[in-house]
Amino acid sequence: MTRTRVHNFSISLDGFGTGENLSLDEPFGHAGHRMHQWMFATRFGTALFGREGGSSGIDDAFAQQHEPGIGAEIMGAGKFGPPGWQDDADWTGWWGPNPPFHTPTFVLTHRPRPSIEMEGGTTFHFLDASPAEALRVAQEAAGGRDVRIGGGPTVVRDFLAAGLIDHLHVVQVPILLGRGVRLWDGLEGLEADYAVEVVSSPSGVTHLTFDRTT
Amino acid sequence: MTRTRVHNFSISLDGFGTGENLSLDEPFGHAGHRMHQWMFATRFGTALFGREGGSSGIDDAFAQQHEPGIGAEIMGAGKFGPPGWQDDADWTGWWGPNPPFHTPTFVLTHRPRPSIEMEGGTTFHFLDASPAEALRVAQEAAGGRDVRIGGGPTVVRDFLAAGLIDHLHVVQVPILLGRGVRLWDGLEGLEADYAVEVVSSPSGVTHLTFDRTT
Repeated sequence: MTRTRVHNFSISLDGFGTGENLSLDEPFGHAGHRMHQWMFATRFGTALFGREGGSSGIDDAFAQQHEPGIGAEIMGAGKFGPPGWQDDADWTGWWGPNPPFHTPTFVLTHRPRPSIEMEGGTTFHFLDASPAEALRVAQEAAGGRDVRIGGGPTVVRDFLAAGLIDHLHVVQVPILLGRGVRLWDGLEGLEADYAVEVVSSPSGVTHLTFDRTT
Repeated sequence: MTRTRVHNFSISLDGFGTGENLSLDEPFGHAGHRMHQWMFATRFGTALFGREGGSSGIDDAFAQQHEPGIGAEIMGAGKFGPPGWQDDADWTGWWGPNPPFHTPTFVLTHRPRPSIEMEGGTTFHFLDASPAEALRVAQEAAGGRDVRIGGGPTVVRDFLAAGLIDHLHVVQVPILLGRGVRLWDGLEGLEADYAVEVVSSPSGVTHLTFDRTT
């Protein structure tokens, strides 16, 4: 039985998964990099930039679960590029020639385009589909492995609302963003279907895991 | 130097400090008692009901700080009674003849009434005042001790926004209420003025403390 998983999804104390005013220069808007500093400080985070070092405690233990067992990712249009990337035929994502996905990666957009094969095993496919439809396509591409829902907050929330997430890892960062896109809206009673664990890290962030029990 | 403090203020994972549809039968609306079960399970919580027993770990350690050093409380109209209590001349609060405050207690309301002296040292005073004005009156009544801001969420938020809180203890309960009154709205960047600590408890709740540094 494969699972649908969310990993390393950062939110602020007031529940925002991304800030306001996203742009090419500010992929997370006024949130800047504050939401992901906890990850950049880990061995997992430094390796993303081809460097060595970093912490290997609780934050790294959680972060490292991002890749093992994953056969495909689904992400929202807002994660793939800045507002308006659909008008740029040459846009291939934020991540350079070798994106950190290394699997088929499905981008949800109302304006699909031809697939793009990148280095390192990542191929971007573009889908105009509901969460359930997209998951079916991604599961087929995942070859028996799990599917990761990569964000942003609207996409994670839509998959949660549709009852499609088996494992959710959220990292709560102790800052108040004040504005942006909220993760938890419209999910009253979600905890009833999950075993919830909460553990704080010496770094100041709090790791929450939701594991489906029903 | 006295401080203005908030203790044992429960919020849901999605940031609500109280639910919807508050009434005489449901003081916390659809949230019920789920937000305060962590406290009822402690020695502090059982003593509130004149009973013995309860846990004496991290949840109790935080809960016990509610009273020491406090000389007065300020609360919102929504904490003192159900919607419409202002129309009931006999309403004296939820807490019976001996309320758990044991100090002068100021109720913020646009319809003040004469003060009510209760057993055990609690006297309810009714004030139509801004946060800063109410705090000045409460500090005078506190006789050199600290003032507690007792909630609900709107009142705590107003005092935070006015820069009047020195110590804030929030307890995040791992449930999604979905609706109600949010604590954190409009407080972007609040963390800049505070040392923030976050620690999870084996009970499942997470304790957050904000201590003013500026």
